[in-house]
Amino acid sequence: MTVRLRLGISYEGTDFSGWAKQPGKRSVEGNLEEAFSQVLRLTPSPRVVCAGRTDAGVHATGQVAHVDVPLDALLRMAHSRVEKDALRRIQAEDGPGAGSLPTAVTEALWRRLNGFLGRNVDLVITHLEVAPDGFDARFSALARRYEYRMADGLENVDPRLRRITTFHFYPLDVEKMNEVADMMLGLRDFGALCRPRPGATTIRELQEFSWHRDENNILIARLQADAFCHSMVRSLVGACVAAGKKKGASLDEIGRLRDAAERTAVFKVMPAHGLTLTEVIYPPDSEVGARAELTRNRRELTEND
Amino acid sequence: MTVRLRLGISYEGTDFSGWAKQPGKRSVEGNLEEAFSQVLRLTPSPRVVCAGRTDAGVHATGQVAHVDVPLDALLRMAHSRVEKDALRRIQAEDGPGAGSLPTAVTEALWRRLNGFLGRNVDLVITHLEVAPDGFDARFSALARRYEYRMADGLENVDPRLRRITTFHFYPLDVEKMNEVADMMLGLRDFGALCRPRPGATTIRELQEFSWHRDENNILIARLQADAFCHSMVRSLVGACVAAGKKKGASLDEIGRLRDAAERTAVFKVMPAHGLTLTEVIYPPDSEVGARAELTRNRRELTEND
Repeated sequence: MTVRLRLGISYEGTDFSGWAKQPGKRSVEGNLEEAFSQVLRLTPSPRVVCAGRTDAGVHATGQVAHVDVPLDALLRMAHSRVEKDALRRIQAEDGPGAGSLPTAVTEALWRRLNGFLGRNVDLVITHLEVAPDGFDARFSALARRYEYRMADGLENVDPRLRRITTFHFYPLDVEKMNEVADMMLGLRDFGALCRPRPGATTIRELQEFSWHRDENNILIARLQADAFCHSMVRSLVGACVAAGKKKGASLDEIGRLRDAAERTAVFKVMPAHGLTLTEVIYPPDSEVGARAELTRNRRELTEND
Repeated sequence: MTVRLRLGISYEGTDFSGWAKQPGKRSVEGNLEEAFSQVLRLTPSPRVVCAGRTDAGVHATGQVAHVDVPLDALLRMAHSRVEKDALRRIQAEDGPGAGSLPTAVTEALWRRLNGFLGRNVDLVITHLEVAPDGFDARFSALARRYEYRMADGLENVDPRLRRITTFHFYPLDVEKMNEVADMMLGLRDFGALCRPRPGATTIRELQEFSWHRDENNILIARLQADAFCHSMVRSLVGACVAAGKKKGASLDEIGRLRDAAERTAVFKVMPAHGLTLTEVIYPPDSEVGARAELTRNRRELTEND
């Protein structure tokens, strides 16, 4: 009998080859699975499934994942008789009821996993709890939110943030960038702004895309979509920069390129290190199961989120 | 004939051995002097004098420095006849009047220095201008401001900020930390909170010291003093943590330790990477000369700021 856990995860992407496991490379998925394997003494390690598979160098403050762990393994880890008894009761019932997992057990697991992930602190499990019934980190999600950070002009550079901020050494026109952002909103085929994957649709609904300057004058883009195709955010930001720089592209030109069938060289795919996955939005707990069902059926063929 | 420039400087301290030049190590001072030497083709390089000599690993967003550069060198760098003529006129007058240095010249120098400092962007000259008469980055300063960043509790960890934030894995009591901060304010001998230097006074006026949580729940300390002794901010923060942690030190105990003649092991010197020099405060331009005179006379013997 297993219990599904819901994880909140943050990482600095600098030293990772991305979320996805790759032979011989350090990945977020790989590190997390190793942590579960070591802390719960499980071989093979349980699979950790995330809501948004970020690219190499991309950061996350709001990544969400699920993982199924055997009650046996939690029982081995439990410290007190009270915890052990509670776990055995859940095991005997052999039903859901795992929601009643003692907090002492989830808290201990949470601290040990973070202990294993290390004092390096570039990958942290910020939350760990029993998932609501039917929860699937990927398929239950309604929407993903990303943030892109860019400093324009040497005066605005904060070297302390250089690992999470792209630098553009001349000023950018934020109003023009917001006009481009507006043009991109809605349900459309983002084929011209994605790295295509065979057999995958590039139709997405971009629900929010806007630029503002934060208290330090850094340009921040906030984006929300039901899901994003591969390198879509970085291309969208590139389109805004193409228009926002001195003697930049016209809105007409951007519009033509947006509707083109293929990727263009005018939109630069912006560097990964400016990008952060900030939030994954889910329906209320009672609806996560139905939502997962729906998405799974609708997107059986798509391989990107 | 030389002209004194005033520089605004930001750096991520991670990969520097501190402000001060040290043989065989990378320093902020060394990098800046090399940039001036290369860009202006000057050997030896002009000396760059800063307001606050930060330790290894400490960051700055508001460091200020001055440097004297020969008009000859600027003349060699000038592009246009207009710039050259303006520089020759200033040279001929042989008086102050350097305030009339063409902006094209200071702007070109600024961009070239940053070009030399590199796209690595861990050291940036954010401002470069002709200094007001009598300005001395160190001795004209009225006060220095620092910020210390600390995340308490695993939920509040943002790995993207791990190079500028210290982590305390259990929650801290910010009210108690503010009580300690209050106790430290005023003009006093900070000998128990400094790494002493022979012949240097440890009497300082701590004008501001308070803690708050930012929008991401990160604990931020803001400090201002006329000047800080060596490792004083990191010890002050250590005293707050000693009191703010679970079963922490009592205010009485902190008070006794504050007034002791020597350093104590109860105050931990907090890690350098949580610390940033955020601002240096100067009097109005017309008073920077008089202020420098005053400080120079008063603090002839002290070697730290």
